[in-house]
Amino acid sequence: MNVRYMINMLGKLLFIEALLMLAPFLVAIIYGENNVISFGVTMGILLMIGGICFLFPPKSSTIRAREGLLIAGLAWILMSLFGALPLWLSGEIPHYLDAVFEVVSGFTTTGSSILTDVEALSRAGLFWRSFTHFIGGMGVLVFALAILPATGTQSMHLMRAEVPGPTVGKLVAKIRLTARLLYVIYVVMTLILFLLLVFGGMPVYDALVNSFATAGTGGFSVRAASIAAYQSPYAEVVITVFMLLFSINFNLYYLILIGKAGSIFKNEELRWFIAIVVSSIAAITVNVYPLYKSFGHALRDSAFQVATVLSTTGFATADYDLWPNFSRTLLVVLMFVGACSGSTGGGIKIARIAVIFKTGFNQVRKQLFPRAVVPVKFEGKLLGDQMQSGITAYMFAYIAVVIFSVLILSLDAFSLTTNFTAVAACLNNIGPGLEVVGPTGNYAAFSPLSKIVLIFDMLAGRLELFPILVLFAPMAWKKN
Amino acid sequence: MNVRYMINMLGKLLFIEALLMLAPFLVAIIYGENNVISFGVTMGILLMIGGICFLFPPKSSTIRAREGLLIAGLAWILMSLFGALPLWLSGEIPHYLDAVFEVVSGFTTTGSSILTDVEALSRAGLFWRSFTHFIGGMGVLVFALAILPATGTQSMHLMRAEVPGPTVGKLVAKIRLTARLLYVIYVVMTLILFLLLVFGGMPVYDALVNSFATAGTGGFSVRAASIAAYQSPYAEVVITVFMLLFSINFNLYYLILIGKAGSIFKNEELRWFIAIVVSSIAAITVNVYPLYKSFGHALRDSAFQVATVLSTTGFATADYDLWPNFSRTLLVVLMFVGACSGSTGGGIKIARIAVIFKTGFNQVRKQLFPRAVVPVKFEGKLLGDQMQSGITAYMFAYIAVVIFSVLILSLDAFSLTTNFTAVAACLNNIGPGLEVVGPTGNYAAFSPLSKIVLIFDMLAGRLELFPILVLFAPMAWKKN
Repeated sequence: MNVRYMINMLGKLLFIEALLMLAPFLVAIIYGENNVISFGVTMGILLMIGGICFLFPPKSSTIRAREGLLIAGLAWILMSLFGALPLWLSGEIPHYLDAVFEVVSGFTTTGSSILTDVEALSRAGLFWRSFTHFIGGMGVLVFALAILPATGTQSMHLMRAEVPGPTVGKLVAKIRLTARLLYVIYVVMTLILFLLLVFGGMPVYDALVNSFATAGTGGFSVRAASIAAYQSPYAEVVITVFMLLFSINFNLYYLILIGKAGSIFKNEELRWFIAIVVSSIAAITVNVYPLYKSFGHALRDSAFQVATVLSTTGFATADYDLWPNFSRTLLVVLMFVGACSGSTGGGIKIARIAVIFKTGFNQVRKQLFPRAVVPVKFEGKLLGDQMQSGITAYMFAYIAVVIFSVLILSLDAFSLTTNFTAVAACLNNIGPGLEVVGPTGNYAAFSPLSKIVLIFDMLAGRLELFPILVLFAPMAWKKN
Repeated sequence: MNVRYMINMLGKLLFIEALLMLAPFLVAIIYGENNVISFGVTMGILLMIGGICFLFPPKSSTIRAREGLLIAGLAWILMSLFGALPLWLSGEIPHYLDAVFEVVSGFTTTGSSILTDVEALSRAGLFWRSFTHFIGGMGVLVFALAILPATGTQSMHLMRAEVPGPTVGKLVAKIRLTARLLYVIYVVMTLILFLLLVFGGMPVYDALVNSFATAGTGGFSVRAASIAAYQSPYAEVVITVFMLLFSINFNLYYLILIGKAGSIFKNEELRWFIAIVVSSIAAITVNVYPLYKSFGHALRDSAFQVATVLSTTGFATADYDLWPNFSRTLLVVLMFVGACSGSTGGGIKIARIAVIFKTGFNQVRKQLFPRAVVPVKFEGKLLGDQMQSGITAYMFAYIAVVIFSVLILSLDAFSLTTNFTAVAACLNNIGPGLEVVGPTGNYAAFSPLSKIVLIFDMLAGRLELFPILVLFAPMAWKKN
């Protein structure tokens, strides 16, 4: 195991975090808030510890899949532990565990909050909280790869550990160029959203943090009533559209950029995504229509809620916990589905769902008609054994994490629905669930043990299980 | 497709049902109840329709897997539709759909009831209801194979469609002898249980119906308070032990009979079963102990509830819906686990859970350490691709059925927990779930559509999905 390479890489990431913290530091200065100190102190600590890491330069730059997973897992944990410091040091969040929960929820683009009164926080604190969504959405390792010099193999291992979905599609031959392209598309799209929101009359500060939360499909809001607070159908429609746009594989935007827009509908995952979005919005609109005065309002709220759950953002415009059971149940099912691979969204991912559906359906047919041999294809290619067994492993680990988490949470006093949807919302990086953790609720009341489990779930969900699970495997830490 | 063979076989099964209905008919005569007429009329109808089936003798006795599945699916549906007649004709259950629900629940050994006042029914009606558990437990096709002359291939197809578990272990070379041995073991164990209950002071009628319900792991009771009504710790302990005994693969009893008792602990499924039983009882006892005055009582109730859920019987001695959330959640998890293959119990089956766990764990290890190759074994044999893909298909179909069913049920007014546990309890052939369908509740309040979905779930659960799913596959009905 190349320990020195790992330490060096982690040091670089802590430096990058100090650099990123300049943004809330500036916000604190602009608004003259006194948490300028807590951000300054944290940046100092980050630079110091990062500096110590550089005392051990790597002897070789060869790493394998295992080190890639370990670096990703450790990087996200360290960045969260340090990222929580300013909120705790300033006294805005009195308990350190709660601050860690909030920042993990930010980086993983979950959007679950332990805050009972979000509007009481400082401007800089809320800015940092929303900015973590933006950082976590595309991934901090991808960002590092975009700005640091590195060679092919280890970059691929790092990128694979952080980018969502069963496969990493290389846009271009060079991974560094890929990482840069992804970030350029990401920043430009966020900027367009920001301008559209400001154009619609949203205050600049609010438009900025809401753009971060939408781009990362995170869902933290600076208002207690979330997006509903702006009472702007225009903003709701714009955010609905952008939540869906950020749920799509970014490779497709690259295809549009190079003039191959026509070929994006050949993407099978996109077709599945559109089918799921359209049918879910239709079913929920019909189901909730009796509660609304106008069809347009019912459609707008249904579309927003489908987009917020499927993109795993977690904004709210309606308290869907008060909707009929059919809609609530369908939203819980969608919570597990999630966004497309290669997007900023979470969940199991459309590609995995599609592959599971196709393989499962084929296997059922095989049971009924043992002689009929029909090969299974996805995205026009035959599904290989490796892909299928990878997805089997993923689903097994996923179900095991759900059962384990719900059992631990059930030691607290809440209902099965609260516990189950809390785990679903954290593991799939959505944010709100139902009942106690519904759109108008929060995660403050859980015990410290449950909060630790939910922190684990958020990280496991964002990094797609393995980089976090590997930290608990004794075999992974063996010298060779 | 050998249609004539199918019709002929179904005719035979209707004759057998008429024969079995002699038992409640006699009970009606003994107690001088007037539903002697409704049973008599139904027997007449069965003999008439069965007779018509014999007008089309099969030209060949060759069948394939497909016909085996279709016969099993149709047989169970027809027997339920006719088996519901006496309860409906006598006016004891006013709606025919409710009577079908109750009898399907009986045959499939589920034990879910739509009766709001079970003690209002006649002795003969309740006897038939409990007797269906006994018939369904070992399977009516297995019974037919035991008493009818038949040759090897088609018997194997029929047996495979009805006996629970991923594989059918042939006890001896001849399938007819196997079927007979299974039935002898089954009847003798039921008789021992009956005698133990009578010995403990339970009324003979009650001891008989409770023995049927325990042997089939069904769970219908003739008392509103279920087994708690007898206020007999002795009976509770005896029934706990027998629920677990009927959850074990019957092949193991055959090994004991031929003097190979020592080899049963080499059975991997049994070791998993014992580990799950012991650890679950321990966890629940610790969790519920504060609610009890004595440790013994807490242990007895915990053991009973674990046995009733894991064996998928569904008797009740304590209202576990009032237990702490941890115990309730653990019981919901156990609902899905179920009993051993080749037993009378339902659920996913221990063998499948064990195989899923081992393959999943191995796949996760493969993701983390791509070079480590460790073969997966179960019951000492390497797991073949066919076994693994069969279980993948099963799990896919299973999850699809759960999601589909919960969504339909959510059109009614009940909570997510009620709907989810109602589906879990019916699909896994347990009986009671939580909340509205908890140990003290019933299924009366669901809409007709939901009842039809739950009937489908019970049948799909008992026949392990494929014989019921195949009925909906257009391809299965093609001439060739």
